[in-house]
Amino acid sequence: MAPKKGLLERLDEGVVIGDGGFVFALEKRGYVKAGPWTPEACIEHPEAVRQLHREFLRAGADVMQALTFYASDDKLSNRGNESSKKYSCEGINKAACELAREVADEGGALVAGGLSQTPTYLSGMSKEATQKEFQKQVDVFIKNNVDFLIPEYFEHVEEMVWAIEVCVKSGLPVVASMCIGPEGDLHGVTAGECAVRMAKAGAHVVGLNCHFDPFVTLEGLKKMKVALDAAGIKVHLIAQPLALHTPDAEKQGFIDLPEFPFGLEPRTCTRWDMHRYAREAYDLGVRYIGGCCGFEAYHIRAVAEELSKERGCLPEASKKHEQWAGGLRMHTKPWVRARAGRQYWEKLRPSSGRPFSSAMSKPDCWGVTAGDKILKQKTEATTEEEIVDLKQKGRLMNGK
Amino acid sequence: MAPKKGLLERLDEGVVIGDGGFVFALEKRGYVKAGPWTPEACIEHPEAVRQLHREFLRAGADVMQALTFYASDDKLSNRGNESSKKYSCEGINKAACELAREVADEGGALVAGGLSQTPTYLSGMSKEATQKEFQKQVDVFIKNNVDFLIPEYFEHVEEMVWAIEVCVKSGLPVVASMCIGPEGDLHGVTAGECAVRMAKAGAHVVGLNCHFDPFVTLEGLKKMKVALDAAGIKVHLIAQPLALHTPDAEKQGFIDLPEFPFGLEPRTCTRWDMHRYAREAYDLGVRYIGGCCGFEAYHIRAVAEELSKERGCLPEASKKHEQWAGGLRMHTKPWVRARAGRQYWEKLRPSSGRPFSSAMSKPDCWGVTAGDKILKQKTEATTEEEIVDLKQKGRLMNGK
Amino acid sequence: MAPKKGLLERLDEGVVIGDGGFVFALEKRGYVKAGPWTPEACIEHPEAVRQLHREFLRAGADVMQALTFYASDDKLSNRGNESSKKYSCEGINKAACELAREVADEGGALVAGGLSQTPTYLSGMSKEATQKEFQKQVDVFIKNNVDFLIPEYFEHVEEMVWAIEVCVKSGLPVVASMCIGPEGDLHGVTAGECAVRMAKAGAHVVGLNCHFDPFVTLEGLKKMKVALDAAGIKVHLIAQPLALHTPDAEKQGFIDLPEFPFGLEPRTCTRWDMHRYAREAYDLGVRYIGGCCGFEAYHIRAVAEELSKERGCLPEASKKHEQWAGGLRMHTKPWVRARAGRQYWEKLRPSSGRPFSSAMSKPDCWGVTAGDKILKQKTEATTEEEIVDLKQKGRLMNGK
Amino acid sequence: MAPKKGLLERLDEGVVIGDGGFVFALEKRGYVKAGPWTPEACIEHPEAVRQLHREFLRAGADVMQALTFYASDDKLSNRGNESSKKYSCEGINKAACELAREVADEGGALVAGGLSQTPTYLSGMSKEATQKEFQKQVDVFIKNNVDFLIPEYFEHVEEMVWAIEVCVKSGLPVVASMCIGPEGDLHGVTAGECAVRMAKAGAHVVGLNCHFDPFVTLEGLKKMKVALDAAGIKVHLIAQPLALHTPDAEKQGFIDLPEFPFGLEPRTCTRWDMHRYAREAYDLGVRYIGGCCGFEAYHIRAVAEELSKERGCLPEASKKHEQWAGGLRMHTKPWVRARAGRQYWEKLRPSSGRPFSSAMSKPDCWGVTAGDKILKQKTEATTEEEIVDLKQKGRLMNGK
Repeated sequence: MAPKKGLLERLDEGVVIGDGGFVFALEKRGYVKAGPWTPEACIEHPEAVRQLHREFLRAGADVMQALTFYASDDKLSNRGNESSKKYSCEGINKAACELAREVADEGGALVAGGLSQTPTYLSGMSKEATQKEFQKQVDVFIKNNVDFLIPEYFEHVEEMVWAIEVCVKSGLPVVASMCIGPEGDLHGVTAGECAVRMAKAGAHVVGLNCHFDPFVTLEGLKKMKVALDAAGIKVHLIAQPLALHTPDAEKQGFIDLPEFPFGLEPRTCTRWDMHRYAREAYDLGVRYIGGCCGFEAYHIRAVAEELSKERGCLPEASKKHEQWAGGLRMHTKPWVRARAGRQYWEKLRPSSGRPFSSAMSKPDCWGVTAGDKILKQKTEATTEEEIVDLKQKGRLMNGK
Repeated sequence: MAPKKGLLERLDEGVVIGDGGFVFALEKRGYVKAGPWTPEACIEHPEAVRQLHREFLRAGADVMQALTFYASDDKLSNRGNESSKKYSCEGINKAACELAREVADEGGALVAGGLSQTPTYLSGMSKEATQKEFQKQVDVFIKNNVDFLIPEYFEHVEEMVWAIEVCVKSGLPVVASMCIGPEGDLHGVTAGECAVRMAKAGAHVVGLNCHFDPFVTLEGLKKMKVALDAAGIKVHLIAQPLALHTPDAEKQGFIDLPEFPFGLEPRTCTRWDMHRYAREAYDLGVRYIGGCCGFEAYHIRAVAEELSKERGCLPEASKKHEQWAGGLRMHTKPWVRARAGRQYWEKLRPSSGRPFSSAMSKPDCWGVTAGDKILKQKTEATTEEEIVDLKQKGRLMNGK
Repeated sequence: MAPKKGLLERLDEGVVIGDGGFVFALEKRGYVKAGPWTPEACIEHPEAVRQLHREFLRAGADVMQALTFYASDDKLSNRGNESSKKYSCEGINKAACELAREVADEGGALVAGGLSQTPTYLSGMSKEATQKEFQKQVDVFIKNNVDFLIPEYFEHVEEMVWAIEVCVKSGLPVVASMCIGPEGDLHGVTAGECAVRMAKAGAHVVGLNCHFDPFVTLEGLKKMKVALDAAGIKVHLIAQPLALHTPDAEKQGFIDLPEFPFGLEPRTCTRWDMHRYAREAYDLGVRYIGGCCGFEAYHIRAVAEELSKERGCLPEASKKHEQWAGGLRMHTKPWVRARAGRQYWEKLRPSSGRPFSSAMSKPDCWGVTAGDKILKQKTEATTEEEIVDLKQKGRLMNGK
Repeated sequence: MAPKKGLLERLDEGVVIGDGGFVFALEKRGYVKAGPWTPEACIEHPEAVRQLHREFLRAGADVMQALTFYASDDKLSNRGNESSKKYSCEGINKAACELAREVADEGGALVAGGLSQTPTYLSGMSKEATQKEFQKQVDVFIKNNVDFLIPEYFEHVEEMVWAIEVCVKSGLPVVASMCIGPEGDLHGVTAGECAVRMAKAGAHVVGLNCHFDPFVTLEGLKKMKVALDAAGIKVHLIAQPLALHTPDAEKQGFIDLPEFPFGLEPRTCTRWDMHRYAREAYDLGVRYIGGCCGFEAYHIRAVAEELSKERGCLPEASKKHEQWAGGLRMHTKPWVRARAGRQYWEKLRPSSGRPFSSAMSKPDCWGVTAGDKILKQKTEATTEEEIVDLKQKGRLMNGK
């Protein structure tokens, strides 16, 4: 049996489809707590994590990202979180890798170990302290033979470069993805400059994930592409956006929107939005195309279906989904059968059923970022007084 | 060990929480095909069905409904569907019962076997032929020791009464639920009259499921309650609505909305909508409170959290969800921590992020129903010519 | 020269087109103060009132309503209003009649003198006191030879009947129009019953004006028609709705909407809405078809254009408006010329350009009405303390 | 009596408030035909034009712009327009000047004569031919002693410069205003460069009018200001935007929006939008602040009220409008009295009452401009065949 092709080889040859978002999906399924968002479910409920991996695999994902989001030791013990003490950083990361590998092997997919931004950095601590957090996770990834590394969900290119430096020492391919938009990072570095710095630090693939919808994300990637071209740098691009419409988000993305995180439902993209996303990403030259928060299996399947010619195959889950709504030919009601076709769904602008809601929101714009005292991490739980203070501060800042 | 309490006993004592929707959730996860919507996943992918049962159990559901929606023999062989031939009606219903029982036993839940409306009836065939279809499923339910029966998703009270007649012969409790709204059934029988007929036919619990959002559904239940009271009938009420906002739907519910079934995302209810739904349903006197299409585990959890005082407990999944967004106290960003509280979320009217979409849609209104030639079922797949004809018909009917 | 035909004769023969709204239009033009809304402009700026009459005449109106809205003595001296003292009730009503007559005679139109609901009644005073206020205005109308009387804008049928009693004594035709919707009057009398009582009190024409949009108003008129038919009463019907969309208004109409009166712009009807209104009103059997607040000349022209076949003529102002956007054939830009046609405008659902606004509003619902202490009229201006109290009361009532 | 101060002197000393839009207002009142938009009303219905002037004067306008929009000879005879033949270019421009002067003298206002872009230029004809059209109008303005000239509503800076050249020869102050937005002119010249060229051609005041809402217009003016500063040029700035929200308009402004010109109502700005506009314009350094299409007297009054401190006075029409809704203290209903205050209206986001409409529209984007064959002017009326062709072309271009 021929050895499995690696990430870079696959990207050179064609498209690699990423998986979708785990923490949002598992929060809704009851296994992840919104707020800390840490992945102790890998130990507490492996069957739930395994099942979600399988859904993405069936949908066409070529990569199983181990569920190691926010699984750094400092985050696992932040603001009253007891996961570090109960399960340890190593325990969670190891369990995540094993689950990803188990499912990946069912379908020839690659396993990726992910790092994300740290409380250590946001608290203004040193490069050394920050990299130590990354190293602890990378050590587990190496021990567990992941196929490549994804430092992702970084808002500051400075911290991202520090993460890449740790990753490249592993000798594995490094996919570096920031959670910024076309306006650049939170310290004011442009998206283009971020791309160049990531590539220069050694990343093999650079791009964007989370925080913005597919189309805003592609605007950011256009800027990255222009800057990389101008710098004469050749790397692959990755896009793993939200499956949520965010035309109204500002620099900090959907975190600032008043609906985050418990009122985002009406923003959810349809599968048809994902057809458009996949096509536009591909046409822009992006070759690692996946999703982040909000992306469920059917969104990934839509990406795989849109790119089925380029990939030469349909995903397993398309056995339960005929192209462009073809399955509706079997519907009981004749007027639903009449909707079986591409033109109908491409033209549809779906209603919200919410006549008392507006189309867009005004984001909270506190504008604070790494180094600001208010972002300082702490192990104690947030007190009631602190919440009251924060609400008052919010009223002052947003004139509410 | 004390024997498990039955449904009617539980309803007399307090609230019974139903589970959410299976076919929509499994369609998105890649296991059910939209159009036929039949549940062969029980055999093909038992792990996916089992996982979804577990999510609802963890979220607080007291009932595991076996995934037997549209699992009548005539539906499993309709318009090119090969499930009947491949797996048989008996095979699918049996597998569904076993999965439901396995998970129910993990948490003291009840198992229900469900029937739904049949192509046989819609094609205008006889009472005898229709009841034969029901009997085949009920036989499997009895053999597999379900705790009660749910004839649900009926648009015509005539067919519903036929189904109840078959069910009552089993000696099991019968929960009868129609997919109609405040305007009544598709033959023009009022919602109140439907309730009375269901109770008179022997149903122990009557009510509504699917087709309308929680608040429209409760409007329908109010009418049922008034009619039952007027008739001096004492039965319990069930509500299992959509988790989709449908203020614009007309008599046939969300099937008529142009977004059905692949563009409904922006209509998805938030967990806060479900707090309001649970409270209003309870205050109306409804004691069997669950959900249908669109209801995911977090929606059921919200119902269970809203009624935690009445039930004296919180569901297992609330370990990952502090009441009223309390978990946000652990969020990195201070302005998100400021959102930890009930008032914030109760007041929020979430935006759609879709400035080119409207709040409401004009439904397709073909107005055809049982007995109409165009609804006649057939085993052959729909042809391309038939689709073209239907589109043309739609344009004429809706002036598009 | 043949004598001018009277109102009732005209109604028997065909359609009579009313004029539009004066107080809203003159408020925007700078001549009427929102709040008191009293018509001292008839004396202060006759040229502005005359011009508005002319616009409606040119647009096709068959009636010039003298601008005597809220011109009763008690209203002219209410809450700090000095118009009664400065100009007197008689002075204002007389000036209004003269202006209406002057313009009416330029085009064969009729002159109507209007009464509206009084502070006297709202303060809970006697029938005698209330009728005395009406009598003062009617005396002026008779002296100035108006062609008929319009008691209009009444929220309570009791007061309306008192007004009709005063009017019928004049011997002039009486058109009685309440500002209620399908839900009936503010004391809980149904719309249908209101119609019957008005007719029985002697009104020759009965119907609805102001407070609701054309389509909600027609819903109310349908109820009136049914009740009149059931009572075997033959009178003509009048509709003079708002030119503002109010699907979200409740019993008290647009007054309760949070946008009243200074944020109503996005609700303004287009001329195409008025084509639909005119057609539906005509088909319902309404023969006196006009408008109220928000109706400008182009709205009345649209009514006249829609009914041009029934009337056998086009209005003068149609010389500046070819049917169904025909004038766009002369537009510079070719894509605007492409919009010259009925189908384009009938299908258009115009956008608001306001992505941060919702489609509908939650009305203030204080639910107080005639007899409530808080409605008591007084001659002193409202104090700052009273405003603060009212705001606090509003917060409590609407949970804001 | 001291001589009236000139425009430039006034601008140096403080704010000059422009008037609002004539052609849209008079179209609604029944005196101007949409499509050609030419101002023969100056001769046909002087009383209507005079009245509108008076409304703006009362509202605080310091300038009476003679109604000479599109009053060039070539436009008055374009596509079947007979105004040139019936009234002559000279006749219309002269009448317009006389009406403006008559009302201006009632309140110390200035009179301006305006030029606008010509069919001659759009048809690709020579500079000489184009300037000849301008000269004819300017000759009338000089003869009638206007106080200054406003070449305005130009989409191409090339034609604008030709107009300025003609104007400066008069020796009068020249206010040059293009109907472009932040994206620049239709030949691709940036907004900043347009400003510089206008100033260099001799304009004393430069800026923007029509085509975009107040806030988009101010974005364009910011770009102009930056470019003028960079070029070391000192001129005054003028803003005369639409009173219609156009966040969705692209390069050609509101002409491209599907609602133009007969479905724009829901986009209409409130008086509170104008407070914000006036403040932001003033803070940006704009000193000539007025309005264009959609601006009615109450919008101009709001500008004057917002800037009353800077100007040291309130307009005459504020006698009928207490600051920040103060007049509502006299309203009958207590909950409306509770709305008497600034905070209420500043916070309000008014609803459209149109649940089937979206917030924004997709503009028609034909992208044709001066020189394109399809824009060629002609004296014959547009034929039915041409309209059919244009509709077909539109469907192809916009995928409709």
